[in-house]
Amino acid sequence: MVSLAEALKSTASLVTEYILSRVAGTPRQLYDAALHLIKAGGKRLRPFIVVTVARGLGASVEAALPFAAGVELIHNFTLIHDDIIDRDEFRRGVPTVHKLWGEPFAIIAGDLLFAKAFEVMGEAIERGVPPQRVARAYDALARATRIVAEGQALDMLFEDLENVSVDDYLDMVYRKTGALFEASAVLGGLAATDDDEVIRALAEYGKNLGIAFQIRDDILGLVGDEKTLGKPVYSDLREGKKTILVIYALSRLGEGQREKLLSTLGKRNASKEELEEAAKLILESGALDYAESVMKDYAGRARTALSKIEFVDREAARLLEELIDFVVQRNW
Amino acid sequence: MVSLAEALKSTASLVTEYILSRVAGTPRQLYDAALHLIKAGGKRLRPFIVVTVARGLGASVEAALPFAAGVELIHNFTLIHDDIIDRDEFRRGVPTVHKLWGEPFAIIAGDLLFAKAFEVMGEAIERGVPPQRVARAYDALARATRIVAEGQALDMLFEDLENVSVDDYLDMVYRKTGALFEASAVLGGLAATDDDEVIRALAEYGKNLGIAFQIRDDILGLVGDEKTLGKPVYSDLREGKKTILVIYALSRLGEGQREKLLSTLGKRNASKEELEEAAKLILESGALDYAESVMKDYAGRARTALSKIEFVDREAARLLEELIDFVVQRNW
Repeated sequence: MVSLAEALKSTASLVTEYILSRVAGTPRQLYDAALHLIKAGGKRLRPFIVVTVARGLGASVEAALPFAAGVELIHNFTLIHDDIIDRDEFRRGVPTVHKLWGEPFAIIAGDLLFAKAFEVMGEAIERGVPPQRVARAYDALARATRIVAEGQALDMLFEDLENVSVDDYLDMVYRKTGALFEASAVLGGLAATDDDEVIRALAEYGKNLGIAFQIRDDILGLVGDEKTLGKPVYSDLREGKKTILVIYALSRLGEGQREKLLSTLGKRNASKEELEEAAKLILESGALDYAESVMKDYAGRARTALSKIEFVDREAARLLEELIDFVVQRNW
Repeated sequence: MVSLAEALKSTASLVTEYILSRVAGTPRQLYDAALHLIKAGGKRLRPFIVVTVARGLGASVEAALPFAAGVELIHNFTLIHDDIIDRDEFRRGVPTVHKLWGEPFAIIAGDLLFAKAFEVMGEAIERGVPPQRVARAYDALARATRIVAEGQALDMLFEDLENVSVDDYLDMVYRKTGALFEASAVLGGLAATDDDEVIRALAEYGKNLGIAFQIRDDILGLVGDEKTLGKPVYSDLREGKKTILVIYALSRLGEGQREKLLSTLGKRNASKEELEEAAKLILESGALDYAESVMKDYAGRARTALSKIEFVDREAARLLEELIDFVVQRNW
């Protein structure tokens, strides 16, 4: 019985190899910049979902590979642009693209991956996916990418707002993170079927898994280990991100502590001591328990959606279920 | 008999109306930023090519409209990102997106239009274009957008090179500008047919027209009128762009004059006098005549390609031919 870790690793190799063979061209400097983060690692969770859903529904890994590469390329394009926007300097343990190549080149490198994502998708036709379903896949990926842009804008706008509700937050993280997980599950489905009921259940699975993933991200941004994460901890605080923990803490703290927390949030040059004090305030509010309970709720919804789908490959179904636990327990 | 000016105007209204009805959502600030340049005007040449080619080959304007909107959205996304990269402050007579909303928002606004371009394309299926051809259209647009990113990177890299050949230049402008004109003609074709010979001739028409368009752009950047252009003249010199006129002048001027020209090229804070002197050196080298002869050569190639296509609608064929003269004679 193959373990989730083994399955993740073997899909990651396949997808990375496929991407590297398709994303090549001139000028070389542009392609180097575009491939920098892809070469630096990444778990390839989204393409794993695409490939495993497709296998689970009886399609071949080969047929699903162009869609898997498509979502991973979109994910990496958003990382490059997000790092510019958030002025982040490290990701996956290496300097970000704009730190190494400058912002103009990083903008174009992101755009290149965006275009390449759609360019590789077409190969699904040669691999036997009917054009009708490939056209639906293009549409689903385009829609998700548009929603991600909206989510990224909301995330930025929330930095300047003191009162962001949990509902606002959940809408934002659906857009910023959930939509691309949703598209990953849907694209895996479209590699195998156009049964609308199956596609809808897959969308539910992906969307809820993605929201749980983002809540875990928020938690790790506060209590995670810098080395395992490959990026500085507390950067969410420094950037003034309205994570679910911050939102909860702001709603629970007394006026004085609330003001104290607000004075550190978004302070780019905050000292280590200030950040640690802010983190302490958040933790004392009970935000961690709250965030974990919301995360588990979304993980449960993903599990329910998954249980409604009849998979022909039981191993794939099991891996998709194990993935939920993996996502909410991860430390990276 | 409808004039080209009338036909351009009526297609522009249709396309703009279609785009405004499809590009709407939240957060509002993001959509405002994304639509800013679209609302500021533009001739909508690329969608005009899509729609007129489609009509010429017997498809309806309605069927071609999603593809027309797709290329125009891609064009506008590249404008937003290019303006950030080139630090341009005016376009179409209004401040650029990043001047008004800041760079982070401008990056996301561009990404949003990019995604929306692919999202609207799918509507062609509902309008009767077979999925197989819609999938080809997605592929052609993705390919073109990837090539545009390569062209934009080359354009930037050339700023730091003293010796750029005319061949290097022509390759760069095919990528930066020709590829999207090429895709426009191809997408118009795919709305009506999948005859490969017709698609190939359309690609030739669009590609060569686009190169001629870019050479005219280079010429107007040196001798155009600021008010008619809606952006500052000489910005190409200030940014150190290797236009065809600059390349020719550098190859013809004596050592002293060449050094003088090079000392102004790329000098962001060059005075009006320095820029005028640089322009004078370029003009004295005979660069204008040279650029015009190369431009006319590409216009001729576009004309030849067009003559190979059997159009069912003669008026559309005439308009596409008149468009060539319009592009090389334009003053905006």
